[in-house]
Amino acid sequence: MSSEQSASNTTVPTQFLQASNETYAYRRFGSGPGLPLLFLQHFTGTLDNWDPAVTDSIATGREVILFESAGLGRSTGKVPDTITGMAKHVFAFLDGLGLTSCDVLGFSLGGMIAQQMGQERPSIFRRMILVGTAPRGGEDIMHLDKPSLAKYLGDPKLQGYSVLQKIFFAPTESSQAAGAAFIERLSRRTQDREPASGPAVAQAQLAAFRDWEKFTGQRFADLKNIQHPILVVNGIHDEMIPVQNSYWLSASLPNAVLLTYPDSGHGSLFQFHESFTRQAAAFLVSDSKFAPY
Amino acid sequence: MSSEQSASNTTVPTQFLQASNETYAYRRFGSGPGLPLLFLQHFTGTLDNWDPAVTDSIATGREVILFESAGLGRSTGKVPDTITGMAKHVFAFLDGLGLTSCDVLGFSLGGMIAQQMGQERPSIFRRMILVGTAPRGGEDIMHLDKPSLAKYLGDPKLQGYSVLQKIFFAPTESSQAAGAAFIERLSRRTQDREPASGPAVAQAQLAAFRDWEKFTGQRFADLKNIQHPILVVNGIHDEMIPVQNSYWLSASLPNAVLLTYPDSGHGSLFQFHESFTRQAAAFLVSDSKFAPY
Repeated sequence: MSSEQSASNTTVPTQFLQASNETYAYRRFGSGPGLPLLFLQHFTGTLDNWDPAVTDSIATGREVILFESAGLGRSTGKVPDTITGMAKHVFAFLDGLGLTSCDVLGFSLGGMIAQQMGQERPSIFRRMILVGTAPRGGEDIMHLDKPSLAKYLGDPKLQGYSVLQKIFFAPTESSQAAGAAFIERLSRRTQDREPASGPAVAQAQLAAFRDWEKFTGQRFADLKNIQHPILVVNGIHDEMIPVQNSYWLSASLPNAVLLTYPDSGHGSLFQFHESFTRQAAAFLVSDSKFAPY
Repeated sequence: MSSEQSASNTTVPTQFLQASNETYAYRRFGSGPGLPLLFLQHFTGTLDNWDPAVTDSIATGREVILFESAGLGRSTGKVPDTITGMAKHVFAFLDGLGLTSCDVLGFSLGGMIAQQMGQERPSIFRRMILVGTAPRGGEDIMHLDKPSLAKYLGDPKLQGYSVLQKIFFAPTESSQAAGAAFIERLSRRTQDREPASGPAVAQAQLAAFRDWEKFTGQRFADLKNIQHPILVVNGIHDEMIPVQNSYWLSASLPNAVLLTYPDSGHGSLFQFHESFTRQAAAFLVSDSKFAPY
C-alpha cells in the first residue's frame, strides 16, 4: 500500500514497482469499501491520459490503480507486439503488488488485455468494464490509415492533445465541446508527468491489433469462457474501434450488459463522464453473480 | 385524477375514460415528483400483462398510467391494423385525461406506437423508454411462424401464461426460472381482470407489424426527427424482435442510450426487473437534454 494518498490523477505522485524484470510506473489513490479498480490504458496512452473526471469520481468508492505497461512512460522494457505479451506484464505487476483479485476497467487496447487476462486467470478479476474495445477476431480495429482517421492524424495543424480531441470525439459541436473539456482536464497535471509515447510504442501496439483481428476456430466462441459479470461500453460513432465490436462482445460473452452512448466516439466515457462514472460505480458495487445492476 | 390510489398493479382498480368515440380501460397509481409514465403494451397484452415488479417499483417516484387500447380487454372499439391508427387512440386517451405531456415506456408493439407519437406530436413526451421494439423498416418483427417461436406457440401442452414463459425468456435455466417468477407475479391479481385477447386482436396487430416493416426513402432516416432523450433496452437473445432492431434504433436516433441484457429474451425488463427499474428511474429523474444518465 502506498503511504502517499491523493484524491486526483491531477496531483497524485507516480510510484514505481520492481517486479519480474521490469520497473513499472503506476498511480494508486482513492479509498472505499470496493475492491481496487485496475485501469488498463489505450493505444499510446500513458498515465497522464486518464481523465481525472473519470478516475477521481471512481476513486471515491474504492482505490484506483493506473498501470503503465512496459515500454510506456517511465516503465522500463519493451512494448510487446501481442496482447498476450502485454497481459504478462499486468500479471507481473499485480503479483508484485500482492493483489490476487481486483476489478478492471480496460479501455480500447486495455480492454483486449483485460479479456486475455480473464481467459488465462479468471480469479484475477471479480467484475470487468470493457470500454471501446473488441473481441479477438473483431473488425476494423484501429486502422489509422482509413480516411476518417487519417485526415486528422495527417493534419500538420493538429498536434498533441488536439489530435485526441478530433479522433476520440464525434464531429458534432456538442461532442467536440466535450472533447475540448477533456483536453483541458488532462492538461491540469503539470508536474511529474510521463514522457509521451514515440513511434516504437505505436508500431508494436499496432502489430498487436493486427494479431488480435486474427482468429482460429469458431469466431468469438472463446468468449464463452469469460464468465465474469461484464459491463461493455461504446460510443455509437466510434471510428477507432466501431460499436459492432461491442455488439459482438455483449452477444457472445455469457454475462455482459451493453451500454452505448449517443453523439460520441472512442472517448464516450470521457464525454459522458458523469453518466459513465455513475454507471460504473453502480456496476462495481453490485455483488450479484449476474451482470445487470 | 383518480380518487382511488393504490401502489400495485396487483390490486389497483381498473378505471374507464370516455374519449373521442371510445371507452378506454386504464389503471393509474403511484405518486412522486416525476411526470406520469405512460405504459404502452405488447402484442395481445392487456393491463394484466404488466409485471407488478416493474410497475410498482417505478410508481414509487411518479404516477404510472397503464393504457388499454381500443379493442383490447374492456376497452371498446376495434383494434387498428396500423401503428398510426393505434397512436390515434393513445392521443385521444391522453387528451381525454387532459395530459399534455408525460414520459412513456413503450414495450414491443407499444414502442412502435411511442415512436409514431413522438414523430407526430413531439411535445407529448419528455423522455421515452423503448424496450424490445423496432424502428419502422426494422426486420424480423414478430414472425410467429418461425421455428424458434412456432415450436412453443403450436405446442398444445402450453396454455396461457406458460407460453409467455417460453417465448419471453431465453432457453436457459436461469432465464426460465425468471420467467416462472414473472408468471407467478402476473397471476397475483385475481379480481377485476381484463378479458384475454382473442384471434381478432392478434390478426390486426400482426397486420400492423407487417406494415411497420415497410419503409420508403432512406431506411431509418425519419428517426432523426425523434430528438427526445431515449433509453433503448433489449434482451440479447430476443427471438420475437431481435436486438438488431435496437442497434438500428440507438444508431439512428440522435439522442438514445442503448442497454442490453444478457441471458434474456423479449421479456428482459421482467427478468432483470430490479436492474431495469433502477435504470429506468435514473433515466427518468434526469432533466438533462442528453439521454445519458
